[in-house]
Amino acid sequence: RINGDRLWDSLMEMAKIGPGVAGGNNRQTLTDEDAEGRALFQKWCEDAGCEMGLDSMGNMFAMRPGTDPDALPVYVGSHLDTQPTGGKYDGVLGVLGGLEIVRTLNDLGIKTKHPIVVTNWTNEEGTRFAPAMLSSGVFAGIHTEDWAKSRVDAAGKTFGDELKRIGWQGEEPVGARKMHAFFELHIEQGPILEAEGKDIGVVTHGQGLSWTQVTVTGKDAHTGSTPMPLRRNAGLGMARILEKVDEIAWSHAPHAVGAAGHIDVFPNSRNVIPGKVVFTVDFRSPDLSVIEDMEKRLREEGQKIADDMGLQVEFEKVGGFDPVEFDKDCVQAIRDAAERLGYSHQNIISGAGHDACWINQVAPTAMVMCPCVDGLSHNEAEEISREWATAGADVLFHAVVETAGI
Amino acid sequence: RINGDRLWDSLMEMAKIGPGVAGGNNRQTLTDEDAEGRALFQKWCEDAGCEMGLDSMGNMFAMRPGTDPDALPVYVGSHLDTQPTGGKYDGVLGVLGGLEIVRTLNDLGIKTKHPIVVTNWTNEEGTRFAPAMLSSGVFAGIHTEDWAKSRVDAAGKTFGDELKRIGWQGEEPVGARKMHAFFELHIEQGPILEAEGKDIGVVTHGQGLSWTQVTVTGKDAHTGSTPMPLRRNAGLGMARILEKVDEIAWSHAPHAVGAAGHIDVFPNSRNVIPGKVVFTVDFRSPDLSVIEDMEKRLREEGQKIADDMGLQVEFEKVGGFDPVEFDKDCVQAIRDAAERLGYSHQNIISGAGHDACWINQVAPTAMVMCPCVDGLSHNEAEEISREWATAGADVLFHAVVETAGI
Ligand SMILES: NC(=O)NCCC(=O)O
Ligand SMILES: NC(=O)NCCC(=O)O
Repeated sequence: RINGDRLWDSLMEMAKIGPGVAGGNNRQTLTDEDAEGRALFQKWCEDAGCEMGLDSMGNMFAMRPGTDPDALPVYVGSHLDTQPTGGKYDGVLGVLGGLEIVRTLNDLGIKTKHPIVVTNWTNEEGTRFAPAMLSSGVFAGIHTEDWAKSRVDAAGKTFGDELKRIGWQGEEPVGARKMHAFFELHIEQGPILEAEGKDIGVVTHGQGLSWTQVTVTGKDAHTGSTPMPLRRNAGLGMARILEKVDEIAWSHAPHAVGAAGHIDVFPNSRNVIPGKVVFTVDFRSPDLSVIEDMEKRLREEGQKIADDMGLQVEFEKVGGFDPVEFDKDCVQAIRDAAERLGYSHQNIISGAGHDACWINQVAPTAMVMCPCVDGLSHNEAEEISREWATAGADVLFHAVVETAGI
Repeated sequence: RINGDRLWDSLMEMAKIGPGVAGGNNRQTLTDEDAEGRALFQKWCEDAGCEMGLDSMGNMFAMRPGTDPDALPVYVGSHLDTQPTGGKYDGVLGVLGGLEIVRTLNDLGIKTKHPIVVTNWTNEEGTRFAPAMLSSGVFAGIHTEDWAKSRVDAAGKTFGDELKRIGWQGEEPVGARKMHAFFELHIEQGPILEAEGKDIGVVTHGQGLSWTQVTVTGKDAHTGSTPMPLRRNAGLGMARILEKVDEIAWSHAPHAVGAAGHIDVFPNSRNVIPGKVVFTVDFRSPDLSVIEDMEKRLREEGQKIADDMGLQVEFEKVGGFDPVEFDKDCVQAIRDAAERLGYSHQNIISGAGHDACWINQVAPTAMVMCPCVDGLSHNEAEEISREWATAGADVLFHAVVETAGI
């Protein structure tokens, strides 16, 4: 069994870097705080006897050697970046859970046949630079590196420039590594496991996602002196499209969700009718045909709303992935581990996207989930118990060591 | 008659300071660009033989002496600050039109009985620091100076600190000056005069305004893993309230308008259901009871929308003024001037708020309007013709000189 107190202490230590305003974290990707978190993780890995690799997307790979020189490593990890008002566990638990495996193996003096590599993937959250899971996506060959590096944040800075600025661009070509398997531990970020009273979620599938950036264009005009019939109010167009997004998602519930988290209004002045609004619609479903239907309806019905109001509208797909089915053997390794350790468990579909969803395309992959309080995530109040974290890391440990062989 | 070419050249010269991105201006109040615009205006006034006064709100008063030592000055002016994506004429025409009166009197060697004072009021636009017409409001005793100086911009800076920073806080107590009369020339910012083919609007009334800042609070949560029934989406609440704002305004049209120009979403991340949205509703009408009805319905129906969605909502009045009736004699002076000069004219109600609306409470006041292309304002594409500007300044000249006496 892993050392739950040590894992918890490391989680709390990492959470000191980039503190939020309400008990959580703001350690967004490629900020100075991200650099500081990376340095701490590197130090811990080196203290545990690992050698750190760094690729040109900033992905970090801490290797604990195996006994068989020909065996491909078993990879394990997640991400250290957070939302602007994020929690202390989303991603971090998966990275430090991986580190805890190495520390436990060191404590027990166990050597595995396959090397074990603990990974921190760059920009999983996708908040600062869309899309999410950007660097695991490049690793898996989904995006080109050039395209990924040209992603721009709200301040106009590129991913490539910011990665260089914080000093975490490596030499290693992205995706060059071959994996025996990949495992990721993550908090559920939803309410199911807690409601069902289960310690462990055995993740069999991940739902797919579609991000459509919508730009509604009207005409900036004075809020006082422009008669109602002459207005072309992009803000009102946005409001009507948001109502439609909700209606579309509900029409497929419980097999779909939809909302817009990002909304920018221009010029955003109290006495100017908005001339432009840019927002991103997030639709998800475990069923690809449902995602396709929602995307299509957003475009058709959004266009109709805009036409009726004399507005222009543009739709751009800025992120997405198809629903995922994880590797049967890896999933079984997780189920077996939970069973062996006596943890209650159930199959679950991941509602969120994860680096594992991309890595699944290039290596046998599976995920372990642990509950989180009220299913709350992407919120500074995100909370888990020490016991849940310990159970998740225990199952991860057994599945990884089983797969890496002794 | 005034010198229309000189007036136009000065307008174009001022527009070089704080250029926008699309041909207009971004010379927001208390920015470095505002300071630069003020310095140019001061230089021009001094070149024209005026002495500059500056009060502790940064209001500027350029005086051309009169012949009667006991006569109160006739004031004339408007504002040099602009919207973030504003035009070249909104406010500026009224200030430089006032300066053109002084220059023309100098050319003609005319001395007036009453002094003439050309004024630039600080922060008329209210975009950076709400409310609009802030410093003429302090002058007229509507707001206290302390309260005005504590107004905060989106970056958390106060009006008071920013005024000091740009070096334009004077010693003179605000509102100490007594006025014989106040005249303001402004572009219409609406479509009526152009549509009616009139050179001049004789402004008899100004419509009233109410700004309500609405804060909708839900719960930040993951857009992927939070089931639809558990969401408390403040963004969707905002959308429904915006639809209601539109419905309320239309219910009183054509005697009312309503919209929200300012909308901030938190944390504004693509994969976080908005936990909070702050936006400002702008309602206007020439009829006070209509404004009161719209405000009341916003609060009642907004509360109901929030309650139905499990959201919290707060309403805060952040700006407003009652409908205004301008001084009959001053209005007549403008009508007489237009008549005498042979310009076509009609009575008009101002759709926008103006410094004149506040000054009207402490001195006999009236306004002249000239048309603007397509009624477009608060837009970088705001446009007027040289002839319209000339006609407006001619009428202003005659009304002011008539009132100041020769
Ligand atoms: N796990 C997680 O929150 N990932 C971010 C990508 C997503 O929005 O699902
Ligand atoms: N004239 C003008 O645009 N003033 C700003 C105050 C308002 O919104 O009416």
